[in-house]
Amino acid sequence: MTQQEEHHPDDVQQHLREVQELLARHRVVEDLVHRQEMPRHELVEGLVHKQHVAELQNRLDRLHPADIAYILEALPHDERLFVWDLVKAERDGEILLEVSDAVRESLIETMHPDELKAAAESLDADELADLAPDLPPEVIQDVFQSLDSEGREQLRAAMSYPEDSVGALMDFDMVTVREDVTLEVVLRYLRRFEELPDHTDKLFVVDRDDHLKGILTLESLLINDPEKEVAEVMRTEPVISFEPGDDADDAAQAFERYDLISAPVVDGEHRVIGRLTVADVVDFIREESEAEILSHAGLREEEDIFASVWDSVKNRWSWLAVNLVTAFIASRVIGAFEDSIEKLVALAALMPIVAGIGGNSGNQTTTMIVRAIAMGQVEQSAMKRLMKKELGVALVNGLLWGGLLGVIAWWLYDNVPLGIVMTAAMTLNLLLAATAGVAIPMLRERLGADPAMGGSVMITALTDSGGFFIFLGLATIFLL
Amino acid sequence: MTQQEEHHPDDVQQHLREVQELLARHRVVEDLVHRQEMPRHELVEGLVHKQHVAELQNRLDRLHPADIAYILEALPHDERLFVWDLVKAERDGEILLEVSDAVRESLIETMHPDELKAAAESLDADELADLAPDLPPEVIQDVFQSLDSEGREQLRAAMSYPEDSVGALMDFDMVTVREDVTLEVVLRYLRRFEELPDHTDKLFVVDRDDHLKGILTLESLLINDPEKEVAEVMRTEPVISFEPGDDADDAAQAFERYDLISAPVVDGEHRVIGRLTVADVVDFIREESEAEILSHAGLREEEDIFASVWDSVKNRWSWLAVNLVTAFIASRVIGAFEDSIEKLVALAALMPIVAGIGGNSGNQTTTMIVRAIAMGQVEQSAMKRLMKKELGVALVNGLLWGGLLGVIAWWLYDNVPLGIVMTAAMTLNLLLAATAGVAIPMLRERLGADPAMGGSVMITALTDSGGFFIFLGLATIFLL
Repeated sequence: MTQQEEHHPDDVQQHLREVQELLARHRVVEDLVHRQEMPRHELVEGLVHKQHVAELQNRLDRLHPADIAYILEALPHDERLFVWDLVKAERDGEILLEVSDAVRESLIETMHPDELKAAAESLDADELADLAPDLPPEVIQDVFQSLDSEGREQLRAAMSYPEDSVGALMDFDMVTVREDVTLEVVLRYLRRFEELPDHTDKLFVVDRDDHLKGILTLESLLINDPEKEVAEVMRTEPVISFEPGDDADDAAQAFERYDLISAPVVDGEHRVIGRLTVADVVDFIREESEAEILSHAGLREEEDIFASVWDSVKNRWSWLAVNLVTAFIASRVIGAFEDSIEKLVALAALMPIVAGIGGNSGNQTTTMIVRAIAMGQVEQSAMKRLMKKELGVALVNGLLWGGLLGVIAWWLYDNVPLGIVMTAAMTLNLLLAATAGVAIPMLRERLGADPAMGGSVMITALTDSGGFFIFLGLATIFLL
Repeated sequence: MTQQEEHHPDDVQQHLREVQELLARHRVVEDLVHRQEMPRHELVEGLVHKQHVAELQNRLDRLHPADIAYILEALPHDERLFVWDLVKAERDGEILLEVSDAVRESLIETMHPDELKAAAESLDADELADLAPDLPPEVIQDVFQSLDSEGREQLRAAMSYPEDSVGALMDFDMVTVREDVTLEVVLRYLRRFEELPDHTDKLFVVDRDDHLKGILTLESLLINDPEKEVAEVMRTEPVISFEPGDDADDAAQAFERYDLISAPVVDGEHRVIGRLTVADVVDFIREESEAEILSHAGLREEEDIFASVWDSVKNRWSWLAVNLVTAFIASRVIGAFEDSIEKLVALAALMPIVAGIGGNSGNQTTTMIVRAIAMGQVEQSAMKRLMKKELGVALVNGLLWGGLLGVIAWWLYDNVPLGIVMTAAMTLNLLLAATAGVAIPMLRERLGADPAMGGSVMITALTDSGGFFIFLGLATIFLL
């Protein structure tokens, strides 16, 4: 590990520990005073207290906003707000952008409208658009009034695009040049900048009306003779550009595929109106995959780990309610066969195996299909072929594992027909699972819904109720 | 959508459709000849055939390697190999790097060692290291012999680092400069390059022995007066650098947090030995989250959607086997209470609800804890606090949903004590689920295992067997 730098990757955890230590020392003093174990010698107390707070503030001032966000997320509620108060007001805006939604909410709650307004005004239009949904309407109103007409236009545009579109991710920081100037002129133009926008790896070459003519990479600016004209060295094809209405997921895949750092966003007439950068794309990719993982467990959103019990219950209840309904339906399916179970109680012990393995197998199928659909590699026409393959896999697994379980059931209960029913039920339920595992995401895709969402609940519901029905039904027909 | 460019994000699907169409036309001719419905007029046949193939080849030559990889993944086995044969040999290497592992295997299988060797030799050392595990040993041997000593050293280094380390992701393409020269000298130096390495946003400033002294961003090179010396404008602190042994996941988080495009990789003496770029990090992030999603469903790796039934069975069997064992254990727990079920058959219908809701709730808890651990925000010392909160959530959910189900059980079976047992069992199983949901990932983390892996199976196993045991046990004690 390199220790000499401030920003080594492990440092953020080091920073967190240091802040926690300073907080702990601060807390000890407070506790002692509070419990009256230390004489209330106000001067001493005040000095010790102030010293710790100053040290902490000093520490925070030297940290990157993303690191402060990280520390805020890792602190329990009281300490989080204590640290938040110590952060310089002019950094509030950039830190609010970095923290998770749940923590952002907890911070904004405690802020005065004037503080919020000041924080919001320190941001660019595209950043402001990200923060806006969490701000009180009157604050947005005030901030909007304070913008110039270009800023208002940008903010209105940025807020008008749906969440998963390129428009919602793009920023408005870009450097454009004309094609009929020399590189020398461009170089002189750039030297007038105090700094370039983050992630500038290319300049956009535009005509008088901002129509995109090509791109001039910093690389070609640097390696070519300065006497050359922009038009000679700019790239005109392929230029990868996006429109604000494009799907952010497609854009992210293009960034990955072509290793982009930035790309122009153009309107319907091919005029440059903004820019998409890899930083926004990385954040988007991370958020998307987080959302998918969380949704698998039925968590609506990333949870503040220090959220109250009640907030956690609210974040999780709807999923539990859905599962309760499906479990209840499965329970009624079993209820319909209570006579059979009374006659052959072994059925009660064996039925959860049939249901459970069906659910597992169906989820494997659907996970694979969802990935393939997300990559755009599965046309609806491929459904038949995939269905055939999945049914094949289900048949093999059913005969293999179902056969094994059939033998075990036979051995445990000394009942050959029971073993055969077990094998048959396993095979049929796995076939049902495969059918549902292919059909549910395919149908959701065709209906325009996100194929990744909710599939797991539906499949488990089907394989549970279906598994119980198949197994108990077969048993009732053939064993009783 | 902008239609005038070759590389619009949606275009890759367009490319795929066009290739599929050309393949279909090709297939029609082949089929007709094969079925003897078309007279075997060889000249005509050959011409038609050649024309389609030439068109297809022409199309492929104009595509980005990543796009060809995408198309290969989306084609069934026969067509995939047909297209693969049409790809120019010198592009084989870069395309093999882009395709998924499963598809890469299917392509390499069909290639002659000499072809593989030629493909491998077209790659950089770090790319070769990525491909090496899939190549036959004799090919690697040959390629290794053909490298110069620097290349051999790099290849050996790149292959020596574990998969999830910075060393495995880094490349060796970088531009270094000295601190005592002027920017003008640097600019002249860069103009001697044909091209800069991909993702060059900064040059690394080193001394005579390659020790990292600072970084010179292209931005500062461009906006500053060329008369200035590198030492005046380079950034010395904070410089974010990594060591090859660093965890790739930490590095990825640093790239996200600080919006990096490239960063130097240094050895123990702070000498620059390589470079990490955002492109590698983006691929890593995507692969990691894919692996996590796949592992939730027990898929060992991304599956070729056109894999044979048998390959699919192999990819999925181990997970099914584990689930079968846990389901069997749960089944034996039920088996131990067969007498109770015989006496009160309602238990058989109600018990899956208790087990199922426990599993869902436990998975919610563990998903949240795993995320917090991955961010490094949960110290082992926070376990007690988190456990208290999760137990609180479980208690609320148990009393709420368990109470509701108790009332329903009472109403369905007209049996008050059964309703009370139902509520009590739900609450206890949710408490068990919460305990396991916090403890399992925490313990895995403490034991140095990946907290994200396998947790879901263990929790479901516990809440299934535990749920059946608690419910049937309580019922046996209080109802019979």
